[in-house]
Amino acid sequence: MAEDSDTALYEQVARSVEQMIHSGTLRAGDKVPSVRRASEQHGVSVTTVVQAYLLLEDRGLIEARPKSGFYVRAQMHHPVPAPEISRPPSAVTAVTVGGLQSRLFQATGMPGVISFGNAAPAPELLPTEKLNRALASVARRAGKRGVSYNMPPGTSSLRREIARRMFDAGSQLSPNDLITTSGGTEALILCLRAVTSPGDIVAVESPTYFGVLHVIEELKLRAIEIPMHPDTGMDLDALEQVLQRQKVAACVSVPNFSNPLGSLMPDENKERLVRMLGERNVPLIEDDIFGELYYGAHRPRVAQAYDEHQNVLLYGSFSKTLAPGYRVGWVAPGKYLQKVQSLKLISTLATATLPELAIAEFLATGGYDHYLRTARRTYEGLVERVSNTIAAHFPQPVKMTQPKGGFLLWVELPPTVDALKLDDLALEEKISIAPGPMFSAKQGFRNFIRISCANAWSPKIEKALIRLGALVKRLM
Amino acid sequence: MAEDSDTALYEQVARSVEQMIHSGTLRAGDKVPSVRRASEQHGVSVTTVVQAYLLLEDRGLIEARPKSGFYVRAQMHHPVPAPEISRPPSAVTAVTVGGLQSRLFQATGMPGVISFGNAAPAPELLPTEKLNRALASVARRAGKRGVSYNMPPGTSSLRREIARRMFDAGSQLSPNDLITTSGGTEALILCLRAVTSPGDIVAVESPTYFGVLHVIEELKLRAIEIPMHPDTGMDLDALEQVLQRQKVAACVSVPNFSNPLGSLMPDENKERLVRMLGERNVPLIEDDIFGELYYGAHRPRVAQAYDEHQNVLLYGSFSKTLAPGYRVGWVAPGKYLQKVQSLKLISTLATATLPELAIAEFLATGGYDHYLRTARRTYEGLVERVSNTIAAHFPQPVKMTQPKGGFLLWVELPPTVDALKLDDLALEEKISIAPGPMFSAKQGFRNFIRISCANAWSPKIEKALIRLGALVKRLM
Repeated sequence: MAEDSDTALYEQVARSVEQMIHSGTLRAGDKVPSVRRASEQHGVSVTTVVQAYLLLEDRGLIEARPKSGFYVRAQMHHPVPAPEISRPPSAVTAVTVGGLQSRLFQATGMPGVISFGNAAPAPELLPTEKLNRALASVARRAGKRGVSYNMPPGTSSLRREIARRMFDAGSQLSPNDLITTSGGTEALILCLRAVTSPGDIVAVESPTYFGVLHVIEELKLRAIEIPMHPDTGMDLDALEQVLQRQKVAACVSVPNFSNPLGSLMPDENKERLVRMLGERNVPLIEDDIFGELYYGAHRPRVAQAYDEHQNVLLYGSFSKTLAPGYRVGWVAPGKYLQKVQSLKLISTLATATLPELAIAEFLATGGYDHYLRTARRTYEGLVERVSNTIAAHFPQPVKMTQPKGGFLLWVELPPTVDALKLDDLALEEKISIAPGPMFSAKQGFRNFIRISCANAWSPKIEKALIRLGALVKRLM
Repeated sequence: MAEDSDTALYEQVARSVEQMIHSGTLRAGDKVPSVRRASEQHGVSVTTVVQAYLLLEDRGLIEARPKSGFYVRAQMHHPVPAPEISRPPSAVTAVTVGGLQSRLFQATGMPGVISFGNAAPAPELLPTEKLNRALASVARRAGKRGVSYNMPPGTSSLRREIARRMFDAGSQLSPNDLITTSGGTEALILCLRAVTSPGDIVAVESPTYFGVLHVIEELKLRAIEIPMHPDTGMDLDALEQVLQRQKVAACVSVPNFSNPLGSLMPDENKERLVRMLGERNVPLIEDDIFGELYYGAHRPRVAQAYDEHQNVLLYGSFSKTLAPGYRVGWVAPGKYLQKVQSLKLISTLATATLPELAIAEFLATGGYDHYLRTARRTYEGLVERVSNTIAAHFPQPVKMTQPKGGFLLWVELPPTVDALKLDDLALEEKISIAPGPMFSAKQGFRNFIRISCANAWSPKIEKALIRLGALVKRLM
């Protein structure tokens, strides 16, 4: 009880400072009232004020400067609006995005290319040396285990760490509910294979990660695209209408920091989504790959936290947060556990042993948490810088999302600009982007692009963005 | 020319010694005529005799004893006949082996179980420490590359090494023809997905590796089983009849040391197989996973060496020869290269970077060749010991294959013995086997078992085999 009222107290203090910032009373670079003064002003303890300021720091509103106090951070003043809620065609669609995906990955692999296209963090932003050292150390110690099959469900110490972490996301998983996978990619295809047959209809976000569309295409499934709100994600009324209208075999959603929008589905929507699908026995395939990269004060809950019927297949990976090249992901397939495990046997049989052991150790020793605390701030700052640069240098009208986590930005260009042509022009100048049509079953979003902000900021990056703006202008 | 006649000369010398052994003139433990004496006898140079003796040593017929000369090795006297050529039903079959596969892998993972069931080499038989050290070293040096995506087609240095090695198997592959995969398992499913659609018929060996059947089951394909000769593999007349009778979407074959028979398809059969399928535009999926573990003097050719129309999808892996747990395999998909690469993107996106780099380095520095020279002799010796033990301790009538490579033995038990029941009894005593029905679409081969000989020989292993024989007797 005491704790509850304390919580309320420091949140009140935080809110009042936040209002001062939003109203313009406090501007970027201004010093926030000292802890002692604020304690007197609000009639609360010094500890409570410190808690409040740490919360504001977590939210990216203020920053501590050593031996000086707290200052208001440079805020993005949102000079550009967010895109409207998407309006995908309501018809069921066959999908063809495989070619675009291959093209993007080829571009990414070309030497000297500045990659805004691929949603993989630049190695400079990852705990690269620490992790490689952890792997070297594990490899020296592993002996027989290192070369032996790590049969599904995979390394138990890693599954234990994942289950423990997901508790913070409201999920009550045991290690036995989890199977490790070769990245999130394998998790996704295993889930879709477990719950669909060729010809089935899958409800997907619009725009959605092109990998989802590519799997749907290859498994000969069909997609029905659900409109997305740039802040809150899937439009659940629209989904409900679809469910009433036709038989859907599964729904794929990224409630936490959708790709490409960075939207965050509110908890009440997550609960409704799970209930709505559960009632109709339609499995929810939930992607939580970006879930750890939240900008807010708390780890957002997963929709699976509201699942009482094992109807959610939840998956995640360490590809966005630690090492894409280690290929370590996981899935908690709910009641489809046996089926997914059987499919894993024919997909890759087992996941590479030593990368899993290295990541398990990195998690257990606290290296992951330590890294994530910095990474969240880094990505929030990078997204802000990229947004500001685009706002300043792209021709009007331009619209942009305001991501709540992750490192992806979804940019709406002037209506006449063809993103596929922009992609061609940009690639000639060694700049890679992900054109909007990749994110739609019907190749919609022709004047949209996805920009990954996970490159260490540099004059070169800034110059490339400015150049991109010039190319957009040329295509208007 | 000179080389050719030299070759003929030393092979003549070798053949004459071989005849002396087979006729009983020279028995196990006898000293072979000294190099000097043989050189006089045959009227050839000392060098030619040494070449002949090294060839015989390679074939496992004689062995060098330091400072003493060459001696006849203890031979397996083949006290038991090989099984007959298999007679699978000629009808097309839906497949259900997934459950049996899961059961086998669970048994293998149980602590204290002696595994004759799983076809994975015991880590004691692998260059475990060397390889783990190579990985540790690569991880320390890799920097950014170690954590980054290793996008398909995969590490170029590894693909170069594989292409170079496959040249010895008669294959003229360039690194650009290859894609690395997460073990042979991923290669197989990618190949089958690339060339089939649900409902299609796939011609498979009978008996065949259960993984092939499990994929066929999950992809909703149907199998037609082709009889296998225990020495020469697939019965090509039978295959031809099937091809004349019905539309087949693909043929899966393991010409070099089939699993479970260890048979070796003669070169002329390989050529005929490729021609037969090529003429009808039926893709051949060729598994060469055991190809490096030959007991004979030469690396056997792959069937793909005879392919002039890019109609063969050839794959291999390092799981039987280096490290199952590293999950490194490869595929040369012929004209299906683009399709397989596109499927790889949705299957696992990329293969783990550092295990590939470690194996590439192990190959480039000669560690692999060095290891394989020993491993071939080791497996040949182990297969012989296991065969002799079974021959001595299993109740009659028992039949066994005489593998030409690899480390698997296919054992036919007395007709009344049910291998699934034997599996139950054995597992109670912590002995794992692979029962025959796993190797057939129709769960035939009820009185067969597959025994993996890839365990370091020990009294414990011998005791377990003897115990297995007692259990067979109980079930008669």
